[in-house]
Amino acid sequence: MKKIEHIGIAVKDIENSNQLFRTLFGKSHYKIEDVESEGVKTSFFKCGPNKIELLQATNEDSPIAKFIEKKGEGIHHIAFAVSDIEKEIERLTKEGFKMIHKAPKKGADNKLIAFLHPKSTNGVLVELCQDISD
Amino acid sequence: MKKIEHIGIAVKDIENSNQLFRTLFGKSHYKIEDVESEGVKTSFFKCGPNKIELLQATNEDSPIAKFIEKKGEGIHHIAFAVSDIEKEIERLTKEGFKMIHKAPKKGADNKLIAFLHPKSTNGVLVELCQDISD
Repeated sequence: MKKIEHIGIAVKDIENSNQLFRTLFGKSHYKIEDVESEGVKTSFFKCGPNKIELLQATNEDSPIAKFIEKKGEGIHHIAFAVSDIEKEIERLTKEGFKMIHKAPKKGADNKLIAFLHPKSTNGVLVELCQDISD
Repeated sequence: MKKIEHIGIAVKDIENSNQLFRTLFGKSHYKIEDVESEGVKTSFFKCGPNKIELLQATNEDSPIAKFIEKKGEGIHHIAFAVSDIEKEIERLTKEGFKMIHKAPKKGADNKLIAFLHPKSTNGVLVELCQDISD
């Protein structure tokens, strides 16, 4: 794993949170993206080599809606950049980690992504992501 | 804010979690440190320009013990590297953020640190940290 690619933060109102994080970082988000398949609207902030992704649910069945209902707003997941996501899924599966996605899928921000189940990672929802251009 | 310096993860048993994260990252932690003032034992993993800090409570009054009791194991805080922590505390206070620490204090890993109250940051516990050598 090359670095923390981004931290995903579940928010109720992405417009308000964009203002809040703009003030926190002293700069605006650089991108907004809807990921219909996940039922989320996202916005991204750069922080040096890393990013912060804000996530707002766009429907009640969205994983973000369920997360906020259960735990409230806050850090939702941590995403690590990998060079070869298929190889990494294979390695982690062999090591006994439980993958939510056994094959990479298209995610936000031009990435191939796969999530690990938090039950196998100390309650931490871990995402692997690889640039599609890699 | 220059980058994500580290992500803090609350764990029940740091020995078990060191093994788990060693398998996840494919490499071992590089440091273990007790922070008596916070009632925590920590271990650190490098991940490119970033770090993962595992935190285990060493007494019942530790913030980590209380966090795990309330929310279970998982991501506890996100720490951003800053060049001048006093200036950043001043800026954020003026912007209306609520600081847990109004002045920097000594933290783990040779850092000056200060936490923001999660109520003012969308439920996210944010830490500022500056290398003492900076």
